[in-house]
Amino acid sequence: MINHTTVTAAIIIIGDEILSGRTTDSNTGWLAEKLNQHGIVLKEVRVIPDNKQKIIETVRTLKEEFDYIFTTGGIGPTHDDITAESMAEAFNVKLEQNPEARALLEAHYGADNLSDARARMALIPQGAGLIHNPVSAAPGFIMDNVYVMAGVPRIMQAMFTQLLDTLEGGAPLLSNTITCEMPESELADDMRALQDKFPDVLIGSYPHFQMGSFGLSVVLRCTEHEPLKKATEDLVTLIRSRGKTPKALSVQVPIDF
Amino acid sequence: MINHTTVTAAIIIIGDEILSGRTTDSNTGWLAEKLNQHGIVLKEVRVIPDNKQKIIETVRTLKEEFDYIFTTGGIGPTHDDITAESMAEAFNVKLEQNPEARALLEAHYGADNLSDARARMALIPQGAGLIHNPVSAAPGFIMDNVYVMAGVPRIMQAMFTQLLDTLEGGAPLLSNTITCEMPESELADDMRALQDKFPDVLIGSYPHFQMGSFGLSVVLRCTEHEPLKKATEDLVTLIRSRGKTPKALSVQVPIDF
Repeated sequence: MINHTTVTAAIIIIGDEILSGRTTDSNTGWLAEKLNQHGIVLKEVRVIPDNKQKIIETVRTLKEEFDYIFTTGGIGPTHDDITAESMAEAFNVKLEQNPEARALLEAHYGADNLSDARARMALIPQGAGLIHNPVSAAPGFIMDNVYVMAGVPRIMQAMFTQLLDTLEGGAPLLSNTITCEMPESELADDMRALQDKFPDVLIGSYPHFQMGSFGLSVVLRCTEHEPLKKATEDLVTLIRSRGKTPKALSVQVPIDF
Repeated sequence: MINHTTVTAAIIIIGDEILSGRTTDSNTGWLAEKLNQHGIVLKEVRVIPDNKQKIIETVRTLKEEFDYIFTTGGIGPTHDDITAESMAEAFNVKLEQNPEARALLEAHYGADNLSDARARMALIPQGAGLIHNPVSAAPGFIMDNVYVMAGVPRIMQAMFTQLLDTLEGGAPLLSNTITCEMPESELADDMRALQDKFPDVLIGSYPHFQMGSFGLSVVLRCTEHEPLKKATEDLVTLIRSRGKTPKALSVQVPIDF
């Protein structure tokens, strides 16, 4: 077996608007891709309501289980933005006016325009480090392994992009995806045997329907080139032996086709 | 305070492909909308990997906490489809060949074409009821309050649509959404006062950026017409008092504009 340090993460999406169906969550997909590219394996996502007790419970549970926790949502100036106060309680620290955050907000709005509502966005749990917000100034923050970011995708992405270099990743998973037109049940036994032959390669099978016909995408993932290459070659041979044409949908480790 | 029976649900999305960023989850958004329309309040979503222990733990925890649990993914014929065996273990029952499920598969594939891999899709936890699959035959199933469905959106949607009439909902939340062009911090204090004045109305504030200017959507939700109408009218008056123009983005309880 290949032994790499696996670095893990979970995402907590805080937001009634996702649970009500009003807003489609795009943060999970974006973060999932960036994390995995960086060698951080996303292991769980939870979408929870704007509810203090639920936020506290969820953060306390997940921060023990995974290396990194990323939260999105609930750090604005309105009454339904309760992430900062919930985090303070989750970590048993005070919520306090952070001088650096306040200075950032003053620079953005002008000192005379810093209303009480806006100043609320400088309330940060004691001891937290700030995550700068180049879009609208109000910062996110870091407590231990918990990274608290905005929910608006453009702001979240700007915050995360700055963080990326500070996050320690493991070996990134390389990935090959092969597609063919056949129902997955026809290849199921062969794929099971392939998985047994290559225990270090994660083999996922994803059926789809298009134009009334069954198609299949097989995703092979591994931190090492060689087993990934060999497993992909075997799969291509298998599909051909069934009289079908394998196609490379996305291939990070090329094989002779 | 309005006292309605609240019927709650959680969704468990089972799938490495979502966590790896390969596939964008569209099941959450679709289910969230349908559930809420039916008067079932979606309280939590968890996305977890194709991992037996994680599936078992998650199901056991959530089925005690919420009225309905809906799972998607992992009920196909391949080695990475482990939802059925995980559910059997979560409920401490045997996984067995279900005669009705087997008959459905035989009718779909033809008795002579029911390979071992395909027959695996008839392995259902003892005592479960079936959820029919009009697209590709392989059924989902129901154990107590847990509804196990396919991950492919088209199949999941067909399964859920059949179930809908059998699900008991509470009073549906009516929803009004008002937008205006201003930063949410300008309206934050007023919205807090509005929330205090109408405790039965859930007021959510969602900022956005478009064409370089700040915009705000305020979502007001309530099971009763009257408080929702009054709170919406107050909000519209507030926005006008700031010299801005409120627009109705979607309004289930009309107000005089």
